[in-house]
Amino acid sequence: MLGRAMISGLLVGRNGGRPIGRRALTRLQQPNERDDHGRSREDRRAALLAVCAGGAAAAALGIYMFRQRRIAFADANVVLERPKRPDLPTLSRKEISQHNRDHARKWVTFKQGVYDITDFIGSHPGGDKILLAAGGSLEPFWSLYAQHKSTQVLEILEELRIGNLDEKDMQETAGSADANDPYSSDPRRHPALIVNSEKPYNAETPPSLLADSFVTPIELFFVRNHLPVPQVADLSKHQLRVEVQNGKKKGAVTLNVDDLKKKFKPTTVTSAVQCAGNRRAEMSKFKKVMGLSWRGTAISNAKWTGVRLRDVLIAAGVDPNDDTIKHVHFEGADIDPNGGNHYGASIPFSKAMSPEVLIAYEMNGEPLSVDHGYPLRVVVPGVVGARQVKWLTTIRTSEEESPSHWQQKDYRAFSPAYNVGDNVDPASAPAIQEGPVQSAFCVPAPGSIIDAKATEIDVAGYAWSGGGRGIVRVEVSTDDGATWHPTELEQAPDQTLDNMWAWTLWRAKIPLPANKRHHELVCKATDRSYNTQPETPAGIWNMRGLLNNSWHRVTIDVK
Amino acid sequence: MLGRAMISGLLVGRNGGRPIGRRALTRLQQPNERDDHGRSREDRRAALLAVCAGGAAAAALGIYMFRQRRIAFADANVVLERPKRPDLPTLSRKEISQHNRDHARKWVTFKQGVYDITDFIGSHPGGDKILLAAGGSLEPFWSLYAQHKSTQVLEILEELRIGNLDEKDMQETAGSADANDPYSSDPRRHPALIVNSEKPYNAETPPSLLADSFVTPIELFFVRNHLPVPQVADLSKHQLRVEVQNGKKKGAVTLNVDDLKKKFKPTTVTSAVQCAGNRRAEMSKFKKVMGLSWRGTAISNAKWTGVRLRDVLIAAGVDPNDDTIKHVHFEGADIDPNGGNHYGASIPFSKAMSPEVLIAYEMNGEPLSVDHGYPLRVVVPGVVGARQVKWLTTIRTSEEESPSHWQQKDYRAFSPAYNVGDNVDPASAPAIQEGPVQSAFCVPAPGSIIDAKATEIDVAGYAWSGGGRGIVRVEVSTDDGATWHPTELEQAPDQTLDNMWAWTLWRAKIPLPANKRHHELVCKATDRSYNTQPETPAGIWNMRGLLNNSWHRVTIDVK
Repeated sequence: MLGRAMISGLLVGRNGGRPIGRRALTRLQQPNERDDHGRSREDRRAALLAVCAGGAAAAALGIYMFRQRRIAFADANVVLERPKRPDLPTLSRKEISQHNRDHARKWVTFKQGVYDITDFIGSHPGGDKILLAAGGSLEPFWSLYAQHKSTQVLEILEELRIGNLDEKDMQETAGSADANDPYSSDPRRHPALIVNSEKPYNAETPPSLLADSFVTPIELFFVRNHLPVPQVADLSKHQLRVEVQNGKKKGAVTLNVDDLKKKFKPTTVTSAVQCAGNRRAEMSKFKKVMGLSWRGTAISNAKWTGVRLRDVLIAAGVDPNDDTIKHVHFEGADIDPNGGNHYGASIPFSKAMSPEVLIAYEMNGEPLSVDHGYPLRVVVPGVVGARQVKWLTTIRTSEEESPSHWQQKDYRAFSPAYNVGDNVDPASAPAIQEGPVQSAFCVPAPGSIIDAKATEIDVAGYAWSGGGRGIVRVEVSTDDGATWHPTELEQAPDQTLDNMWAWTLWRAKIPLPANKRHHELVCKATDRSYNTQPETPAGIWNMRGLLNNSWHRVTIDVK
Repeated sequence: MLGRAMISGLLVGRNGGRPIGRRALTRLQQPNERDDHGRSREDRRAALLAVCAGGAAAAALGIYMFRQRRIAFADANVVLERPKRPDLPTLSRKEISQHNRDHARKWVTFKQGVYDITDFIGSHPGGDKILLAAGGSLEPFWSLYAQHKSTQVLEILEELRIGNLDEKDMQETAGSADANDPYSSDPRRHPALIVNSEKPYNAETPPSLLADSFVTPIELFFVRNHLPVPQVADLSKHQLRVEVQNGKKKGAVTLNVDDLKKKFKPTTVTSAVQCAGNRRAEMSKFKKVMGLSWRGTAISNAKWTGVRLRDVLIAAGVDPNDDTIKHVHFEGADIDPNGGNHYGASIPFSKAMSPEVLIAYEMNGEPLSVDHGYPLRVVVPGVVGARQVKWLTTIRTSEEESPSHWQQKDYRAFSPAYNVGDNVDPASAPAIQEGPVQSAFCVPAPGSIIDAKATEIDVAGYAWSGGGRGIVRVEVSTDDGATWHPTELEQAPDQTLDNMWAWTLWRAKIPLPANKRHHELVCKATDRSYNTQPETPAGIWNMRGLLNNSWHRVTIDVK
């Protein structure tokens, strides 16, 4: 089998020059006991290394092959859980979280098991990505690298077990509510996320993980909160109020999550969500802007399930041809602890009536996570994240846009003629809805070092455009756009270029020019309307640092 | 009145240093006869100069004020026609056309009058734009500068009369059919058009005229023909065949123009049409490409009237929710004299069902001109010109795109990784439908000379984006994008940013940096999805030179 042959080759390559971690080595060199399947420890060790190497190989050789290989390795029907071990101590999530990548001993959890992976890291054929899991759970990583999902891998992991996760901590919420801190009951987050702001919580996905999976695991999905996370204590009591007009008549209906599930047809759409401030840090380097310093991975892609907004509006009494309705407003349960305003936004009525717009209750086949809007959020494919209101409580048809601060004042990209501090008329720019065409590298990381003898380099990243305009191509240049290299695209198989809500992942092996001490790699995408990205932020710079879609540039060094 | 005061001021300014043309002077210095309205020749002369100066002022001060002033001057209800003058000779269109801007004596026509304007040009307060009419008719110019449309102007013009236009030549067709030349019965065109190719005829609007009118006069509307112009001898016999599917059932109906007008509701949409090759000349300067060398005005804007394509399709039996239909094909009566293929193209079914898509029979309130598709064409707002098939004979629903050469092989913007002469797989790029965001200067002309003391300059141009994405702003820079100046936009009052099919005209007075011998002016537009134009063609260059929307750059000299 090609897959295995390749992995073996890589296995040798990757481990050739490295010492195998002490503890892992010790454990792996135990007497050659047989497991339930009659395999020796040595067989199991080889299998584990092969499996992890599969991950490395995937990064090197492209998701497409990786996906094919995954079918051979993943063992979907197996129950991946090991029981409580009464012989081991109970450990709290708080204690575990301290054993993160900065601690001498790195711990991870998988379900209720707690594992010390410190000594295994050196021999992990998948490289040091596993470090990003330290202090948190392995689950999202095994979603990315599904070849781990097998009993054999779990058995090897079990050998690193040091404890049981406290049952109280198996819930998602951090749970240390403090009346003086409105953020104290925010949920627990995965330590791999790159935090830009703790309160409100805003964090992006590590670039080295983002392009490894077409659907972003929930725990690694970037988080953009404007306010403290609201708590839903009793799901049956969460209510969605739908206030509609029909000509001059007004009415309202109230639904809970069960009503939505029972009364309307479930629909699933794979759609990327991008923060309008993604890549702000680069724009700020060009010329200082205001706002959270998103580096470039404030974007993720998920499979959303819910009911069509249009179906709910029509059931509530809206006439699809009513031309007095211009906008549909959304309000979330999240509330400003100072001002008392709820988060809110609106989208044009015509978009609200499009079949891809959902009131979602599931993400990647699971209930929405607390950070992503549990129990309900709006998903507006093709539109910027700020309009996709989480913790949804209210939907309202209107002749006007939402009066919310975030619709009226913020999330507008003003002219580069205005500088930070200028008094700008918000009406001089429309509320952002669809975003422009975008692409960025996830691999290599800026500042990576490459061997002087290397003649080519692996590159990978994401691309997306607003309004469902599919990505036609992504190209990479090593000479500032004088020549371009094509990349291989991975796109949602059920979406066409005219209705592409999901992102596009891309990857390639790019030849490197000889005799250079640094390389600047540039990428840019072209969408269905043949819009492309501008070379620099010169024409798009705006005081709030929104919608930076200039050519993404990554510099790497040669040694 | 502000308007008049301004015009008087300008009149002095414009004529101060210039000799008034000899012949006009002589005629205007006739004894002080009174006209029907009791005004003396001197009054009339002053009025004419004031009116023409209004045109100059309009260019200088912006369409908005111009339009307001127009109301004061235009005299819409007057019959603007002077009878045949039996005392003057009959002149053929052919002879007149030789008296174009390159001839010592410049002639123009207005209705059946022929006029020698040579000696008036020097005293024309509107400047030398009138030269562009030489050899052709004044009508499109008077559409642009409507303040001319008054009896007083016509009376002055009548004094320059030298003959009567041959009645045979009052028809649009050139009429000199030659069996050996498939192009010989192409219609007559206005001499102001800038011709890129005679056979097939391809010509663009002079930039100095284009931005002077929100709706482009028919005779000045750019022309993009792929083949000889077909002739419709008998309108009642022109038939439109509509072939549709409904599930697996197929059917067809045949309609003539009268059927369309009687059976369906008339609809009017103002929509810009742009050739996908517009601004190819600039792209070719960056790096050589193939195709007609369009400079930058292969775009125009008209008010189209017809019936909705969706209404006709539904009447023919199409189910709007039929998801087996993916595309709608169009065929024109124009036929390749070598191969026998008709011109053809297609658009996605979802677009075909949008309410803005028309089967048009009128343009700016008149029947379509022969060059623009008489008697029927498809108008697909937001989509590139090549899909808006002229001389429409056939509409066909389909699961596939049109098999025509222009859909399958041409009108695709390939990757810059491919060079002229490379063998490219057409499937590597989709057929162009919507175009990217675009803007360009019409004023100033490249190479214009500006006085060293000038501290500012008037700029004007157009902007447009595909898919109905309205233009949010157009900005101009004199320092290659380091700083930007806003411009004033003129947009269709009945269209919103989310459904803007018409173009945007823009103008401004821009401060000029001091002490420079040359200035490079740059413009760029931002659309509703916040897409912008790339700085250079580096990322968009393609062998066919399509969709050049890089920042438009104009260099002017200081003297």
